[in-house]
Amino acid sequence: MQKFIKEITYQAGQIILEKFGKVGVKYTKSDATDVVTEADLAANDYLVEQINSKYPEHGIISEERGESKTDAEYVWIIDPLDGTRNYSLGTPLFGVMVGLARKGEMVMGAICDPTHDQLFFAEKDQGAYLNDKKIRCSDIREWERSYGMGFANINEKTAKISSKLIEAASKEPFWMNSFGATAIATMQVASGRRDWCMSLHDTIWDDAAPAIILQEAGCIVSDHEGKPWTLKSKGMIAANPHLHKKLLEIITK
Amino acid sequence: MQKFIKEITYQAGQIILEKFGKVGVKYTKSDATDVVTEADLAANDYLVEQINSKYPEHGIISEERGESKTDAEYVWIIDPLDGTRNYSLGTPLFGVMVGLARKGEMVMGAICDPTHDQLFFAEKDQGAYLNDKKIRCSDIREWERSYGMGFANINEKTAKISSKLIEAASKEPFWMNSFGATAIATMQVASGRRDWCMSLHDTIWDDAAPAIILQEAGCIVSDHEGKPWTLKSKGMIAANPHLHKKLLEIITK
Repeated sequence: MQKFIKEITYQAGQIILEKFGKVGVKYTKSDATDVVTEADLAANDYLVEQINSKYPEHGIISEERGESKTDAEYVWIIDPLDGTRNYSLGTPLFGVMVGLARKGEMVMGAICDPTHDQLFFAEKDQGAYLNDKKIRCSDIREWERSYGMGFANINEKTAKISSKLIEAASKEPFWMNSFGATAIATMQVASGRRDWCMSLHDTIWDDAAPAIILQEAGCIVSDHEGKPWTLKSKGMIAANPHLHKKLLEIITK
Repeated sequence: MQKFIKEITYQAGQIILEKFGKVGVKYTKSDATDVVTEADLAANDYLVEQINSKYPEHGIISEERGESKTDAEYVWIIDPLDGTRNYSLGTPLFGVMVGLARKGEMVMGAICDPTHDQLFFAEKDQGAYLNDKKIRCSDIREWERSYGMGFANINEKTAKISSKLIEAASKEPFWMNSFGATAIATMQVASGRRDWCMSLHDTIWDDAAPAIILQEAGCIVSDHEGKPWTLKSKGMIAANPHLHKKLLEIITK
């Protein structure tokens, strides 16, 4: 299954990369910031076909085409194009995310960043990998030397957290990015290029694959109250083990 | 001079790209977040040599090697590697910025984003270009549909502005990124992929090339009080003409 998830995630990445900048917007969802492109659907259909053909008994939860057999032992959780707003605007920060849950727990995840030819992968208790080389979260211990990943979509909910971070930063300066693509942002942390990240999604395809890769890279991955992250969590806080407590303190105080 | 500035900026981009991920950190400046790599110096020396050899009478202001002949009619303003922290961490968002001032006013600018093979260029009153195709800022008129570029380096000064933006967003949600590289962030706006951006530098090489490219792409480019941006400004606010006033209101209120 390792080889299969890496292969289909990589191939779906090639599908969206090929169409990047070439296709127009096919339709929009509830608002203009949530653009779904042809590429999104093409990658989705490719992934679903591959999974159905190889593992017909498995369930699938997909951002684009809903759910099937979610009570199966194995359920695939796919986001065929994360970072659609970047994608539709021509900004090369987007990716494909594929996760696999067994009996409600994540057991595998793969993320493809096709623009930069990066394939991230993790299996439960087997470590995390970037292009088949082991990766590890950062070792930064001092908060003020840390470099994190915040929110791009600033609304009432995320604004509360962002303002706490900024208040903290005005006393102990740090750096923080926001890329507008969970796939790319979280994998910066998994590969030790950044030190912490967060999400506030209520849709599991956004966090499923990142969570297991971050965990296997050595991060602490929790919900926003500090409890271990699960597929039922609403949002995620991930950081290297030295900084997780501090991050949680800042955003919950 | 058009051809020359594009050529040297592109070539300097290739120098830093080639070394990306291969070179270690040569030395650090005042703190760990300001890493200067071998690539930075190699690109700087290449640019200075090219300029000195072609235009020996011109002045040069460079981030890495200081100033020379700044009272000359033409002065080149170069940042051989913008986004050094991304670069040193392995995040492919960085660029080369070269500006040319004549009698204290920007007349040309070029920015190379080598990872994504993008060369931005503008000449005073001649428009802005990406890989020789004309670019134009966005046409978004509604603030809540806008997508901007904020700060990565959160300190006392930038935190004040960031919190105003976040406060505004908690009422009228919008999206905002931070890439940790002025070269990449500002060119998102010049090419219409984002709608506004800002800087708070007190070093002219950070804003010189972006300012003229943004201006020639149709943006309004001002200082933080709304006065037209000049080489003496401390920081920059740039936005498409529909959104500049609103952005200024938010950050100055």
